[in-house]
Amino acid sequence: MLAPAELAGGLLEKGAVKLSPAAPFTWSSGLKAPIYCDNRQLLGDPALRGRIADALAAETARFKPSLVAGTSTAGIPWGALVADRLNLPFAYVRPEPKKHGMGRQVEGPSAKGQSVVLIEDLISTGGSSLRCVEALKAEEAEVKAVLALFSYGLPAAMEAFHTAGAKLRTLATFESLVLEARRRELVDAEGADSLQAWQRDAAAWSKANGGA
Amino acid sequence: MLAPAELAGGLLEKGAVKLSPAAPFTWSSGLKAPIYCDNRQLLGDPALRGRIADALAAETARFKPSLVAGTSTAGIPWGALVADRLNLPFAYVRPEPKKHGMGRQVEGPSAKGQSVVLIEDLISTGGSSLRCVEALKAEEAEVKAVLALFSYGLPAAMEAFHTAGAKLRTLATFESLVLEARRRELVDAEGADSLQAWQRDAAAWSKANGGA
Repeated sequence: MLAPAELAGGLLEKGAVKLSPAAPFTWSSGLKAPIYCDNRQLLGDPALRGRIADALAAETARFKPSLVAGTSTAGIPWGALVADRLNLPFAYVRPEPKKHGMGRQVEGPSAKGQSVVLIEDLISTGGSSLRCVEALKAEEAEVKAVLALFSYGLPAAMEAFHTAGAKLRTLATFESLVLEARRRELVDAEGADSLQAWQRDAAAWSKANGGA
Repeated sequence: MLAPAELAGGLLEKGAVKLSPAAPFTWSSGLKAPIYCDNRQLLGDPALRGRIADALAAETARFKPSLVAGTSTAGIPWGALVADRLNLPFAYVRPEPKKHGMGRQVEGPSAKGQSVVLIEDLISTGGSSLRCVEALKAEEAEVKAVLALFSYGLPAAMEAFHTAGAKLRTLATFESLVLEARRRELVDAEGADSLQAWQRDAAAWSKANGGA
């Protein structure tokens, strides 16, 4: 199995997660943050990618779903690999209906009456994942869990999942990432504190660092 | 291996391709056509999906690429399965830059200097596939081939690939599909003629059938 610390190490090594508490990133929303994540970088490493897919598949199997779904676009490759390993049907879900075409959100086989595990690459605010959950529910599917590679663990996101009654599982946690970054001396104690302050209140951290 | 006739049979059986020369479909463009294709239905059949992925991987391997790419969104699951089977890095390509975010078209590992096979699910006009080819070339990748599950074989699309200097391979052809549909008595001789007339001149066929 893939331990959270090992995946956290992989995220840092492959540049999927970048940490810079002293010189914050500007997210596309205008917010400042000490962390930037692009898990798609992991798709470039076949060995690590395969181990992540194995770990996602093992966790998915625990929920005994009849359908594996992936969030569009970044969850699609992971979802397809999981479905392949478990020999299960695969569908993908758009957070918003497609502009042109038939306005469908769930693409592929019908989700109606299926029990689904939804594969996501990253939980940030949780908004787009939960819109995918709603789209599946609207097709009368039961969503057993949302399974993500990584989550920032932001309180508002955790609260949103709770309110929606959606179970969330992640392979690597923010805490395991900060610990691993400390172990590798990628951040000092002050940097780790700043990361944890951001996690507690990302909006306040952003304002304090000149962001929106 | 997966013979074209066998895949054509699978496309018809799974409802991925629907034929209706007598009561045409209206495409989202407003055009009328005797055929409608949604290859994403194939994602729902793990056994057939696996055989298609194997066939795509075998064809991809002939070009000895260093990177497998998939077109967003429908080519992503197939591309990921091919990359997994060949133990190669995977990236996906948007036909247009994303509206929000950093405007990237190639997502995942850098395509710069890589030799790429681009996996697509369907060639219709060829426009979106070729925009993906251009995006890869703009990142200084060499595109060895575009590999699609199925193509309508429309002359304008074939011409567009030729003009762009892009090699196109498909697992199932329009001809194999019409033959298989005839063999299964899903269309009669008149219907098959109508399908072939559509392929020769889709615009004229549309107008003659009350379309745009």
